[in-house]
Amino acid sequence: MQINGNYRNLQPNYLFSTVTKRVAEERRRHPGKPIYRLGVGDVTLPLCPAVIGALGKAVEEMSAAETFRGYGPEQGYDFLRERIQQYYAAFGVSLDLEEIFVSDGANSDLGNILDLFSKENTALIPDPVYPVYLDTNTMDGRKVLFMDGGEENDFLPLPDPSVKADLIYLCSPGNPTGAVYTRAMLQSWVDYARARGGVILFDAAYESFVTGDLPHSIYEVEGAKECAIEISSLSKTAGFTGMRCGYTVVPRTLEREGMSLNRMWLRRQTTKFNGVSYVVQRGAAAVFTPEGRRQTGEATAFYRENAALIAAALRELGVWFTGGVCSPYIWMACPEGMGSWEFFDLLLREAGVAGVPGAGFGRNGEGYFRLTGFGSREETCQAIAALQELYRARGLAG
Amino acid sequence: MQINGNYRNLQPNYLFSTVTKRVAEERRRHPGKPIYRLGVGDVTLPLCPAVIGALGKAVEEMSAAETFRGYGPEQGYDFLRERIQQYYAAFGVSLDLEEIFVSDGANSDLGNILDLFSKENTALIPDPVYPVYLDTNTMDGRKVLFMDGGEENDFLPLPDPSVKADLIYLCSPGNPTGAVYTRAMLQSWVDYARARGGVILFDAAYESFVTGDLPHSIYEVEGAKECAIEISSLSKTAGFTGMRCGYTVVPRTLEREGMSLNRMWLRRQTTKFNGVSYVVQRGAAAVFTPEGRRQTGEATAFYRENAALIAAALRELGVWFTGGVCSPYIWMACPEGMGSWEFFDLLLREAGVAGVPGAGFGRNGEGYFRLTGFGSREETCQAIAALQELYRARGLAG
Repeated sequence: MQINGNYRNLQPNYLFSTVTKRVAEERRRHPGKPIYRLGVGDVTLPLCPAVIGALGKAVEEMSAAETFRGYGPEQGYDFLRERIQQYYAAFGVSLDLEEIFVSDGANSDLGNILDLFSKENTALIPDPVYPVYLDTNTMDGRKVLFMDGGEENDFLPLPDPSVKADLIYLCSPGNPTGAVYTRAMLQSWVDYARARGGVILFDAAYESFVTGDLPHSIYEVEGAKECAIEISSLSKTAGFTGMRCGYTVVPRTLEREGMSLNRMWLRRQTTKFNGVSYVVQRGAAAVFTPEGRRQTGEATAFYRENAALIAAALRELGVWFTGGVCSPYIWMACPEGMGSWEFFDLLLREAGVAGVPGAGFGRNGEGYFRLTGFGSREETCQAIAALQELYRARGLAG
Repeated sequence: MQINGNYRNLQPNYLFSTVTKRVAEERRRHPGKPIYRLGVGDVTLPLCPAVIGALGKAVEEMSAAETFRGYGPEQGYDFLRERIQQYYAAFGVSLDLEEIFVSDGANSDLGNILDLFSKENTALIPDPVYPVYLDTNTMDGRKVLFMDGGEENDFLPLPDPSVKADLIYLCSPGNPTGAVYTRAMLQSWVDYARARGGVILFDAAYESFVTGDLPHSIYEVEGAKECAIEISSLSKTAGFTGMRCGYTVVPRTLEREGMSLNRMWLRRQTTKFNGVSYVVQRGAAAVFTPEGRRQTGEATAFYRENAALIAAALRELGVWFTGGVCSPYIWMACPEGMGSWEFFDLLLREAGVAGVPGAGFGRNGEGYFRLTGFGSREETCQAIAALQELYRARGLAG
């Protein structure tokens, strides 16, 4: 008996637990003092009426033998896949139904998709980024290279043709940076992947925050269907963090070594997954109705406005940041070369604002800090005022 | 770029699709003729009122900011884990909360648990059995050995000390056989696993069908917490095939190579899984309330009675079978050395009964046939009458 020894190589990730612990300590030390949580990556608005209505109806269906649903298709019901297909059509992306796989969230698919690839591949991962890309590859013992994000490239690294990578992770709008790749930038990644025979794993979990002419999907770029898998989620699109539903697109034209990755993923999912709850899928389908789009769009706009208010305050203070436009996230430089955790403690103690230290997202996150627009309007405005007051009182420069 | 080449070694599994196709053909050929579906492994009764009530309440909670729930604990909410803990206590099994992981169904965990083990391990799998055990190990390139089930051991194979295996799959009550291991038999497996340092993966998906003194859980057996992981599901317990909820027990005392499998599984789940829908977990918790236990118990008893009616008819016809007592499944010998698919066609065409050919569950399933108690009472009785008529008309011996 041998265990998977790669688990020994995992670095413990105490980012959010340490944040929570320090916030709790601060509360204990100063019981009356308000603490504004601008760090959480979770939504706060309830599910919209269109979704609630659909969920209620589905629960009712499950109560009568005539309308009860047992096992459904592992890749999701057509009523939902057709809605997702139409949603993509609005970006000008045409997908076959068989290319769409309904999942219980982006996180599961980001981990499970690695089943399709050899452990001998090299993964190329942005730094800073969502820690799951690194951890899931470490669990498999895959070699990992990093692409450096920094102020010089606005935390949007571009391909270096001399780097030999097989699995390329892109997250746009980025977590934690909120930075969004343009079509031209994504094209350079698609060209790089195709030239190397690599596969891009495109995390589009925040695409619903995109406005204007920036791309929602990597398939808006020429050639992406030959080299990219797109993983998305309703968590932020529709407040589904507690409901669990997402979708993954594996194009039929994506083949490697004569094997269709679409068919491999279908086999993986029909073997190791039994589909998403019928009730949840009905709720998810309601997200894509005109009514659901309008209602969830209002929630997204609300979070985006929170982020814009934070962004405006930082701009006024002369603080360097990215994000805050097509993203709920603001990624700001800590003042005067301060470390991420040092700034975290200062902000928490002096301003009562709890954010997330950038160092938790990779080496290049040191010296940066993540704020989010997921709070209430009141909490966000109070946090902004406290932050401004701190910068002024301390004479901090951006 | 290399794909996971093990996918090339997967055998296509056309069992259920072929069954469905042949039934559809028969319908086309004889449009008016009734066809009794006694093959499906899916439930047919709706969710019980206790569960429906809890689901409706949870949906309502998601509609208001004050009661809305976002990300929950990846390993499941305590309100559900405590109920599962109490459920186990009723079998005399004491579990810590941290040993219980809520999942979206047994199928996911049966696949994903393999993440914890080296590809160098050898898996020992019953034949016949649920095909997922073989497929998930094939995807990892693990060596697979089979333990032979047959009439001589009532399809309950026992350990052979000369066989060197690391991962041992047991399914009791068995799918497709309906056969149930006694405590003494499970003890011999636990002793074998401990002597070898192996790990048992115990599939308890059908435990709620167990009556009398037979074990529901492998932890009813001495030493199992040092060598066994138990994977269970509400699919059959509470008609959750379309709702998706199960649970996996990884004891804290289960260690290999100095690593705690409980901590490894926690790390796996917190990295590659974001928990089960809050709404579904509320429904699942209602299953374990006194009211839920009574209501789901009635449904299980109903399916068990269907199986008992089929079993009684087979006994009268002198047909060899196992199952049908503590299981919704009846595993019968085909008459007069007939092959599984030959008997399938005969039964479908002559009696209008659709079952599942045993050959679909492994080499040793050839010559056997699976019937299930999940139909309506009327359909089950009509199918029994048609089967009896066929045996009499053809003078078939058991």
